[in-house]
Amino acid sequence: MWLIDGTPALLTDFYELTMAQVYFKRRMERPAFFEVTVRRLPEHWGYFVMAGLGEIESYLKAFRFDDNDVAYLQSTGIFEKEFLDYLRRFTPDVQIRALPEGTVFFPHEPILEAGGPIIDAQLLESYVLNILGFSIIEATLAARTVIASQGVPVLDFGLRRCHGPVSSIRSARGGQIAGFKGTSNVFAARALDLPPSGTMAHSYVQAHESEQQAFLHFARQFRENAVLLVDTYDTLEGVQVAAAVAKQMIEERGIKIKGIRIDSGDLVALSRFAREYFQKEGLDFMKIFVSGDLDEYRIDDLLAQGAQIDGIGIGTRYGAARHAPAIEIVYKLVQYDSKGLLKTSPDKHTRPGRKSVTRSKSNLYEIDTVSPFDPEADDLLNPFTSAEPMATIQQRLRTELAALPQSVKAIRNPEIYPVEFSRHQ
Amino acid sequence: MWLIDGTPALLTDFYELTMAQVYFKRRMERPAFFEVTVRRLPEHWGYFVMAGLGEIESYLKAFRFDDNDVAYLQSTGIFEKEFLDYLRRFTPDVQIRALPEGTVFFPHEPILEAGGPIIDAQLLESYVLNILGFSIIEATLAARTVIASQGVPVLDFGLRRCHGPVSSIRSARGGQIAGFKGTSNVFAARALDLPPSGTMAHSYVQAHESEQQAFLHFARQFRENAVLLVDTYDTLEGVQVAAAVAKQMIEERGIKIKGIRIDSGDLVALSRFAREYFQKEGLDFMKIFVSGDLDEYRIDDLLAQGAQIDGIGIGTRYGAARHAPAIEIVYKLVQYDSKGLLKTSPDKHTRPGRKSVTRSKSNLYEIDTVSPFDPEADDLLNPFTSAEPMATIQQRLRTELAALPQSVKAIRNPEIYPVEFSRHQ
Repeated sequence: MWLIDGTPALLTDFYELTMAQVYFKRRMERPAFFEVTVRRLPEHWGYFVMAGLGEIESYLKAFRFDDNDVAYLQSTGIFEKEFLDYLRRFTPDVQIRALPEGTVFFPHEPILEAGGPIIDAQLLESYVLNILGFSIIEATLAARTVIASQGVPVLDFGLRRCHGPVSSIRSARGGQIAGFKGTSNVFAARALDLPPSGTMAHSYVQAHESEQQAFLHFARQFRENAVLLVDTYDTLEGVQVAAAVAKQMIEERGIKIKGIRIDSGDLVALSRFAREYFQKEGLDFMKIFVSGDLDEYRIDDLLAQGAQIDGIGIGTRYGAARHAPAIEIVYKLVQYDSKGLLKTSPDKHTRPGRKSVTRSKSNLYEIDTVSPFDPEADDLLNPFTSAEPMATIQQRLRTELAALPQSVKAIRNPEIYPVEFSRHQ
Repeated sequence: MWLIDGTPALLTDFYELTMAQVYFKRRMERPAFFEVTVRRLPEHWGYFVMAGLGEIESYLKAFRFDDNDVAYLQSTGIFEKEFLDYLRRFTPDVQIRALPEGTVFFPHEPILEAGGPIIDAQLLESYVLNILGFSIIEATLAARTVIASQGVPVLDFGLRRCHGPVSSIRSARGGQIAGFKGTSNVFAARALDLPPSGTMAHSYVQAHESEQQAFLHFARQFRENAVLLVDTYDTLEGVQVAAAVAKQMIEERGIKIKGIRIDSGDLVALSRFAREYFQKEGLDFMKIFVSGDLDEYRIDDLLAQGAQIDGIGIGTRYGAARHAPAIEIVYKLVQYDSKGLLKTSPDKHTRPGRKSVTRSKSNLYEIDTVSPFDPEADDLLNPFTSAEPMATIQQRLRTELAALPQSVKAIRNPEIYPVEFSRHQ
C-alpha cells in the first residue's frame, strides 16, 4: 500500500475483539460507559487543548466490518461463526459526550464518554485513543507555540518529520485550531482549507549558477509572494544579495517581493542584521521569516533576546512532538449495568461512575469540579454528534486561553490549575 | 475523512512545487542527484537500521497529479497553466540507489540516492523523508528492544499511542524486521502477515461479577490461547485466581491455558512470585507476559534484576518513539548537471558529489568508508526497484547485528563506530 484503505474496524487491538466475543457469547449486553482521561501533564505543560472530534465523527460513520475484515478474522482461527456473522452486521450504537474541541482541560478530568452496549463501546477504544492522543498533543503544542510567539505568525513545516500522513494532517489541524497562519503540507492545506506555505529549499539555490541568479529567477516568477532563503552559503552575504534583488524587482517591475527566510545560525544576530540592513537600504517592506529546529521554548528565547521576526516556521519539534510524543491517555470502563466500577492497580486507580465536569469563573477560570453525572449540571461534557465549524473551535480556544490564568499558561513551570473531585467518588 | 485518499502527490511541502515551477520555466532539466543522510544518532543509540523501502516503492508507483490535485494547485493562484498541464502528465523518472532494508548504518552515510531530472527528484523530498524517518526509528528501536530482551519474545502493543494509522503500520513493520513475534494491531497484522496478539483489558475483568468469573469465561472461550490479566485489583490474588482457573481447565477439559499478563506494579517481584507460585502448584506451563510503559532500558533492567518473563508487550514508548520521536534525516542535492554541490550553512555542511559506501569486515565490522561514486565498488548502496521479501530483510538484520561489535550494539553508552570520508570530498 502507499496509503491504507478499507474500513477502519481492524485498526484496533486484537483484544478488543477477543473480549467482544466473550461478551457476545455470554450475552453481556447491558449498557456500559467508558471514560477518556489523561493521567499527567508533560513537563512544563499547564493544560491540554481538546481536539480530534472531527476525525472521531468520520471514524464512527465509517466503522463496519466488510467481507475482507471478517474473512481475515476467520483466518485467525480464534473466532466462532456466530460471532463473525454478528460482526458482519455490526455498526456501533454509541452515544458520545465530550468536551468540545478547543476546550482546555486538565489531568484526570473526563474528556470524552462513550456509552452503549459494552461490545459497541469497547470496540472503539484503541482507535479513539489513537485519534485523540496526537490530536490533543498537537493542539496543545500549537497553543503553547502561539502564546510564545506573541502575535508573530506561525507556520507548520512539520510534514517531513511527522510519523505518517494522517498524523501530518492532525498536526496541521492542531495548528489551525490554535491560529497558525498556514502549513507547508499541501495535502493538509487542501483538506483543511488552510493557506499552503513555502518558497524554496537550499537545493534550489545550489542548483543555480549563483545565489543571485536563483533569487532573481524566483522573484520574477513569484513576485509579491517571493521569499528568498538566504543561508545556503554565507547568511550576511545572502541578506545583501536578497536586498539587491528586492531593489532590482522594484526598478524592473515595480514589485515589492515578500522577504527572506533564515534557517540556521544565530537567529537573533542574523535577523537583527537583516532588519537594520533592509531599513538602511529603504527596504522596510522586507519580511524576515525564521525556521530551524524551533519550538515554544526557543521562540520565547529568541523574542526575549530581541530577534527581529515577522514569521516563524516550526517543523521537527512540532510535527514529531519531540518533548511530548505521547500522553497517558486512557479509555476506562467506569460503569456497567448501572454499577460504578473501579480498578485498584498501583498508579492506575480509576474513579467509578459517570461524571459531569463544571468550571468556576470570576474574571478568570478558578477551579474545575468533577462530580457524579448530573443531567442538569452546566456540564463541560456535551453530547457529540458532529464536528463544529473550524471558526467556532478557533474562537472557543481564544476565549478559553483568555480566561486561563497567566500562571497556568506559562511556557515554563506553570502553576497547577485546581481540579476538585467531589467526595462521593 | 477517516483516512485520506487520492494520490500521494500533494503529500509534499509547498516549496517543492514552487521550486519545480521555476525549474520548469527555466528549462532546468539536467540530471540531479539527491542524497538522504541522518545527521546524528539519538542519545544511547550506536547505529540505525534501514527501513521504509517497501513504502517508497508503492509511493513511487502511485505518484501522479490527478484532476483534483491540479485543480487545487490552480486555485492557489501561484502556478501557471503550462506548469499545471505539465504536472497533469507527470510521473517521476527517478532512479533510486539505497541501502537494502535491514542494513545497519551510521550518521552522515548516504542511505538513499535519488537521481533524475531535478524536478522529478526534488518533488519526492518531503514524503520520502516522512516515510524513511519513522520507519528507520522504529526498526532501530525494535532492534534495540530485541537485543535488550535476550531472546524473550517481544510484541508490539503501540497502536493507541502511535501518531496515526500509517505510523502504526510502520511501527509494526519495524518490529517485524527486528523479529517481534506479533502485534496487537489487527490492521497491521493483516497487512504484514504477522500474528495478531492480545487477550483482555482491565475493563473486561471489571465488567464481570468477579475476577474468577471473568477468567473462567475467557479460559473456556479461548482455551490454549487464553492469557489472563491479573492486575486489575490485587496482583498477588490475581495470580492465585489465575492458577485456580488454570487447574479447573485441566480438570474440566484437559486443557492447559497459556498464562497470565502483568501490566503494572513491581514486575520483578510480581513475576518471580507468579513463577514460584505456578511451580509450587504444578502449573509450570503457565507463561508470564509483562507490559506497562516498557522500553529497551526497562527491559534490560528487569532481566538484570531476575524478572521471570516469557513475553514482553511494548506500547507507548515504542509506538510514539518516546526517546527519539524524530531523527535529523535530510535530503540534500549533491550533484546537478555533473557538478558536485555543497552548502556551507553552520552545522549543515554537505559533502558534494555522488558517493559509494563500503564496509570493512574481519570477524566483525571494522570501519565504513564513504568515497566518490565508483560503479565498480562493493557498494552498500544498491539499485532499488522493488521491496525484498520480509524473510530476506529479517535475515539481513540478524546477520548485520551479529557482525556489529558488542560495544556498538550496547543499549546504553555505545561506542562510536568509525566512518571514514575519503579525502577528495
